Amino acid sequence: MGVKLGILGLGTVGTGTVQLLQDSAGRHPLLQEIEIYRVGVRSLDKPRAVELSTEVLTTDLEAIVNDPAVHIIVEVMGGLEPTRSLILKALSNGKHVVTANKAAIARFGAEIFTTANQAGVYVMLEAAVGGGIPVIQPLRQSLSVNRIHTVTGIVNGTTNYILTRMQTEGSNFNDVLADAQRLGYAEADPTADVDGLDAADKIAILASLGFGGRINLQDVYTEGIRQVSKTDIAYAEKLGFVIKLLAIAKRDTPSSPLSVRVHPTLVPQAHPLASINGVYNAILVEGEPIGQVMFFGPGAGAGATASAVTSDILNLVAVLKTNTAVANPLLTCGHQEYCQIAPMAELITRFYARFLTNDQPGVIGKLGTCFGNYGVSLESIVQTGFQGELAEIVVVTHDVPEGNFRQALAEIQNLSAIESIPSLLRVL
Amino acid sequence: MGVKLGILGLGTVGTGTVQLLQDSAGRHPLLQEIEIYRVGVRSLDKPRAVELSTEVLTTDLEAIVNDPAVHIIVEVMGGLEPTRSLILKALSNGKHVVTANKAAIARFGAEIFTTANQAGVYVMLEAAVGGGIPVIQPLRQSLSVNRIHTVTGIVNGTTNYILTRMQTEGSNFNDVLADAQRLGYAEADPTADVDGLDAADKIAILASLGFGGRINLQDVYTEGIRQVSKTDIAYAEKLGFVIKLLAIAKRDTPSSPLSVRVHPTLVPQAHPLASINGVYNAILVEGEPIGQVMFFGPGAGAGATASAVTSDILNLVAVLKTNTAVANPLLTCGHQEYCQIAPMAELITRFYARFLTNDQPGVIGKLGTCFGNYGVSLESIVQTGFQGELAEIVVVTHDVPEGNFRQALAEIQNLSAIESIPSLLRVL
Repeated sequence: MGVKLGILGLGTVGTGTVQLLQDSAGRHPLLQEIEIYRVGVRSLDKPRAVELSTEVLTTDLEAIVNDPAVHIIVEVMGGLEPTRSLILKALSNGKHVVTANKAAIARFGAEIFTTANQAGVYVMLEAAVGGGIPVIQPLRQSLSVNRIHTVTGIVNGTTNYILTRMQTEGSNFNDVLADAQRLGYAEADPTADVDGLDAADKIAILASLGFGGRINLQDVYTEGIRQVSKTDIAYAEKLGFVIKLLAIAKRDTPSSPLSVRVHPTLVPQAHPLASINGVYNAILVEGEPIGQVMFFGPGAGAGATASAVTSDILNLVAVLKTNTAVANPLLTCGHQEYCQIAPMAELITRFYARFLTNDQPGVIGKLGTCFGNYGVSLESIVQTGFQGELAEIVVVTHDVPEGNFRQALAEIQNLSAIESIPSLLRVL
Repeated sequence: MGVKLGILGLGTVGTGTVQLLQDSAGRHPLLQEIEIYRVGVRSLDKPRAVELSTEVLTTDLEAIVNDPAVHIIVEVMGGLEPTRSLILKALSNGKHVVTANKAAIARFGAEIFTTANQAGVYVMLEAAVGGGIPVIQPLRQSLSVNRIHTVTGIVNGTTNYILTRMQTEGSNFNDVLADAQRLGYAEADPTADVDGLDAADKIAILASLGFGGRINLQDVYTEGIRQVSKTDIAYAEKLGFVIKLLAIAKRDTPSSPLSVRVHPTLVPQAHPLASINGVYNAILVEGEPIGQVMFFGPGAGAGATASAVTSDILNLVAVLKTNTAVANPLLTCGHQEYCQIAPMAELITRFYARFLTNDQPGVIGKLGTCFGNYGVSLESIVQTGFQGELAEIVVVTHDVPEGNFRQALAEIQNLSAIESIPSLLRVL
């Protein structure tokens, strides 16, 4: 049996996947049964890093998803449309789909998985989160015997690269971003990465798998790293923390609503995620009875992502071999309900805040009183130095409902002694 | 459909597994289709932490593996016999087997997997390595599209706990071992752990999966941590290393023989495995094109191991659901050949050695000359201090064939200036 692939897109990931499949010696022997049957591209004339015959390359992507000979569609073209329509058409036509497209899955997951279930085929998405790291399959399968409490990830390599350099070099966000763009670690339009949108797509997917329900992407609170200053990174370090852009999904009790969010976070230096640096990704899963497990690896790159895409293809080839029409319940999407997401005001977390104040006696006392009025208890309060005429005060709170903290902050902002509140960050 | 389990053994892992299965709310819904049908124990009278009806508990283990009603045998009794015979009997009877027994798999894997293949059933062993960490399934499936270069693991929690405490407290091996025994982190007879035998079983299994061939356990070079001294841990730290008991399987080129070994190793402080402390385990896999991925988590404990055992059960329940007689090639063992293992003399590695010498002028020169005679080039050579009358010299080499290094060492041992060579460790 030869399994026929229709690959949509021949960019970085598509090219990496074709290269892997064309060089199969020394890999799983099942890969030799795969035929790269059609590859859909925008332009036939563009020079390519891989050799493909003229019958294989086509600009007619619609024809690929409608071709009865194709067993598996590999969607590595990215974007939302026509990608969504092509995926849905492929599924309706009874083809399994492998996709690396976190944006499409996070937005259209409901209709994509519903269509797949109706057609009795599978949607595989290992490459959508964590690049090459095997995390989707473990969450869907091995770890699903646990009651998951939290999924916490560093899932965006670009922002982790920027924060790591800001930390080690003491540089500003804008300088490091410009350099990262020059080096190809950040895109010309860095919005999706630095504003946390890419991480939000990914945590929506991880939360859905970990907690067994659909996630409305609009419910995911998202805050990027543009506001993280080198000053805060330095203070965090003195207090025993590093600042990381974390994507967090958490459920306190089996019946409580989920908290799903992306924001820069002070992470204690001894925490397993604190030492994940550069473009690496890591996903920490906590559950009962397993405790903590962490998956670490390259979060992006042609080779790593091709590994994940091809592992999904391999899984499907193995499934096709077993020659059954009955679905494997670990490969289908078993949930239709949406998860209830708690509003941010109900989040219980620690906070780090930095204040610039007029250097009057009693400022710290006034801050403490305002916080106390709203039940915000302080873990530490440090007058750290001066910026010109202004004194700088840094506060770390104990766990507190975010709503209470915000109310206290609103009152503090009105104190005559307070000049400004340049930073406000959550603490893990 | 109810899937009937026959569980062999009700010790720590068996009890944890029963507890997990009896408390299935909030876990994967498929778990609710599982029936704990028989549990084989040595004594019916022993008080148990779980409630099981009198029809379920039995001392007749043979009857369980022969019972036609049983779909899956869960072997959590440990030991080599009668375990091996019971597993083989169960497989011959057409039952899938889940086992946490690294010792049995490492020794009898060949006949166990051959029997399973002949009977058309699966042997699942996620719990055999890395406790709760999902690493067996990723190696068998996702990562198998890569050409694996190395699998490097901290796979024994007891020794990692001892080394971590020796490092942080500056204590001796014997003192920490005694305390670990008192606290239940080490067994009364600690041989299997501290002499590296448990780690050798595990790396044999990981190597077999990663490199697609059988491993003869006798070929695995095994050295434990009894000889690691607090002196060496302190010197290693000064040189930028920590000492870890690593289990390593490595192939330099696709055609070269494997190196499979367990020994205490100096690990550079920035290496991902250097910060794995206490009873935690981690397995680092390097391959092409994926690069480095690491799996981290609890390497032992009732809950973590029960999670792995139950994930295997879940996988089998899903397979039974698909109702096909055709085997999934990702769940069977596809290799029959034995891997060729390189002799240690051919290993290329760095070394750390500590010498006690009479404080004569020119000792360092003589050392350097001896090493040079055998092509051993030195990365650093430091006279570190004195122990009584004797000077202490620490050497770190560049990469060198172990055979050459040993020849140089034999010559050095005969130098009149050399009193003794108290330590010899490999460097990652």
